[in-house]
Amino acid sequence: MKSDIEAYLSERKELVERKLLELLPNLNDDSSGLYKSMRYSVLAGGKRLRPILCIAASDAVGGTVENSLPLACAIEMIHTYSLIHDDLPSMDDDLLRRGKPTNHSVFGEALAILAGDALLADAFYLIANEGFTKGLRPSILIEVIKDLSMAVGSRGMVMGQAIDLSLEGCEDVTLEASECVHTLKTGALIEASVIIGGRISGANVYQLSRLKSYSRNIGLAFQIIDDILDIEGGGETGKNRGADQRKRKVTYPALIGLEKSREIALRLTREAVEALNGFDEKAQPLRELAHYMGGRRY
Amino acid sequence: MKSDIEAYLSERKELVERKLLELLPNLNDDSSGLYKSMRYSVLAGGKRLRPILCIAASDAVGGTVENSLPLACAIEMIHTYSLIHDDLPSMDDDLLRRGKPTNHSVFGEALAILAGDALLADAFYLIANEGFTKGLRPSILIEVIKDLSMAVGSRGMVMGQAIDLSLEGCEDVTLEASECVHTLKTGALIEASVIIGGRISGANVYQLSRLKSYSRNIGLAFQIIDDILDIEGGGETGKNRGADQRKRKVTYPALIGLEKSREIALRLTREAVEALNGFDEKAQPLRELAHYMGGRRY
Repeated sequence: MKSDIEAYLSERKELVERKLLELLPNLNDDSSGLYKSMRYSVLAGGKRLRPILCIAASDAVGGTVENSLPLACAIEMIHTYSLIHDDLPSMDDDLLRRGKPTNHSVFGEALAILAGDALLADAFYLIANEGFTKGLRPSILIEVIKDLSMAVGSRGMVMGQAIDLSLEGCEDVTLEASECVHTLKTGALIEASVIIGGRISGANVYQLSRLKSYSRNIGLAFQIIDDILDIEGGGETGKNRGADQRKRKVTYPALIGLEKSREIALRLTREAVEALNGFDEKAQPLRELAHYMGGRRY
Repeated sequence: MKSDIEAYLSERKELVERKLLELLPNLNDDSSGLYKSMRYSVLAGGKRLRPILCIAASDAVGGTVENSLPLACAIEMIHTYSLIHDDLPSMDDDLLRRGKPTNHSVFGEALAILAGDALLADAFYLIANEGFTKGLRPSILIEVIKDLSMAVGSRGMVMGQAIDLSLEGCEDVTLEASECVHTLKTGALIEASVIIGGRISGANVYQLSRLKSYSRNIGLAFQIIDDILDIEGGGETGKNRGADQRKRKVTYPALIGLEKSREIALRLTREAVEALNGFDEKAQPLRELAHYMGGRRY
């Protein structure tokens, strides 16, 4: 039997995937293959954690899924764009993602780059267009676009990837540098997902600061556990086992060992849950999501 | 002595470049080189026609440069991102742009892709952030973001580039297919530049429709003239002469010859100016811009 959180996750995941399918129709006149390439990666599976975090944060302050769903899908489109570009030969040069051939292995580099570019731009269109259609307050939507573009541009995700690439092969990377990469590359979008979910559903300043604390803790925990899984393997990430190690990527386990990394991930998860102390039972999925994300596979 | 339009262009160009310089500071701690790569291409020159069109359209309906300048810079950042990605080895594989080595020739492919990605995301941040700071109406800003993201995503510029790549080397490309590529790849952003300038300064529905007609005509004229210049050469584009021909790119001159292409460009320019018949003398720069763009080098 499924636990409550598993039921919650699979229900939200289905909503997100149905909406994504609707947003990326299988066009008959897609002669260039652009939509095919976008669809391939967006619909390639994954846990949809970022969009579910967005919906759960909205739920936590009493919002409706109807309002948070377009934002959640925009976040997943941006996440997918970042994966497509990160996998490119000139970046991480990965052939597999979630157990399937990466976008550029199937569609070629040019179309992979363009699919990523389109997903990024289309995500902002989705927010502006659906928010407008749904009658959401424009001032809130502008804040949402500010949060999201800040999280994924030169002050966030892209800078994280650039620093990560510049550190590859370095012998003397500090824990601080590694944490900075994690925060920018993975943490910023996770934080934005949670904040945006809260914002769209009317979270007040206090709630937003608690959601920020929650998301920072789970964001770092999530990355550390990803790095642990890369070493321990098991096919969950769908990457070749030890891919990060072979590329001498800067990771927590590489710097302080597996056991200490696990301890830190658990501490961060606990602190994430504590950050939500002032929230009522509507924040329960968000609390359980922290445990779920912090407890993957061990 | 400079003509009025030349003085207008150089004044607006200077404003745009000063603002871009301010937006992309020369950071001391840019260890990854990301900002250096972004600055390199954004400050690599060019006529800044798109941002100037945005400002001129705003001027035409009585707006202030203070309000249109951030949008104009966001448009130039997006234009620059598209050039960086178009030049990549897997796309057009160009070594020169505006007479200088292309971004990836200087910074490598990975950083070139990331610089483009960052410029795209940062452009939306700029609009949301500066618009918010300046107290512009959020509902107008959302419309601006809708226009711009539509113009550059899978329904606009990126699709244009994807179709263009898919047609390379084809023997039987029609004039309609070629015009579709032009419209999406170049026209959509030019149209958005003009519309957004009008929108931010309170253009009414009638004015917006006239601005749309103006921009569609100059957009296509502009692309045709670019293609003519590619054949005639002369260093204005800074590309290797005949680069499009060697790649068998779909162009007007290739399909219907130089003379007929020139005729069409002139007709489009005339129609653009006529579209502004209902505007007063504040639209004079916009009218002269059409002549300027349509009359380059002949």
